[in-house]
Amino acid sequence: MSSSFGCALCAQDGGTLVWYGKVLRVVHVEEAGFPGYYRVIWNAHVAELSELGAGDLQHCMGTVVTVERVMREQLRPTKVNLATLGNMVPHLHWHVIARFDWDTHFPSPVWAPSVRAAEPARLLALKARLPALDAAVQRALD
Amino acid sequence: MSSSFGCALCAQDGGTLVWYGKVLRVVHVEEAGFPGYYRVIWNAHVAELSELGAGDLQHCMGTVVTVERVMREQLRPTKVNLATLGNMVPHLHWHVIARFDWDTHFPSPVWAPSVRAAEPARLLALKARLPALDAAVQRALD
Repeated sequence: MSSSFGCALCAQDGGTLVWYGKVLRVVHVEEAGFPGYYRVIWNAHVAELSELGAGDLQHCMGTVVTVERVMREQLRPTKVNLATLGNMVPHLHWHVIARFDWDTHFPSPVWAPSVRAAEPARLLALKARLPALDAAVQRALD
Repeated sequence: MSSSFGCALCAQDGGTLVWYGKVLRVVHVEEAGFPGYYRVIWNAHVAELSELGAGDLQHCMGTVVTVERVMREQLRPTKVNLATLGNMVPHLHWHVIARFDWDTHFPSPVWAPSVRAAEPARLLALKARLPALDAAVQRALD
């Protein structure tokens, strides 16, 4: 598997491991205000989605939509946000983020300035549902 | 084709039309500071990527990576950013954005605060290459 010296996503998992496969992994990300924040990370060091062959692209996006679908079923978010940016770490990884109309940034992207205060009780209730989401993601990908 | 009353992307093209197909379209977006900003918009009113069937998902992502690939060939960006958010307009559309290490926000996402001043000469030079990019996208999708 190709890897790149000094790349954070070649050296580390990039979050709490939820599922690990031959070509990609799913991790949970600790991001304040967004408990429903996962990443689908391609294991090999590839920068751009368009570098994947047709089969790998299908596998990668199939996994991203599986995580999204299970997230929708388990968390019932207002919207799911998907992004692959990689400006800081040019190693293919997808952000899969459950967004709620009460979260600190909605309807802005999570990278924009916040628009309201956090709601600790709602965040705690959401966090309590993550073990079930993780288990459902594992079942869906196994 | 399903459409939703009051949805901006059901009512309008959502940018300058570059390519129009049966199920999706590609538009160029006028976004200050980011001339290489395109959207791939699903024509029918679908909110989440995971609502697409397997064939439609493959078609949608195949188009997104085709636009990305042609963008990389034509513009040689530092990185391409892909995102489908839809918090404001929950009608499936992909942002495909050519990023450069000299742009106002790099390496931050385009939705974050800017980190440097714009470079008008470089932006003009980039804009001058868009007709060739548009033509290459059309050739690749026809």
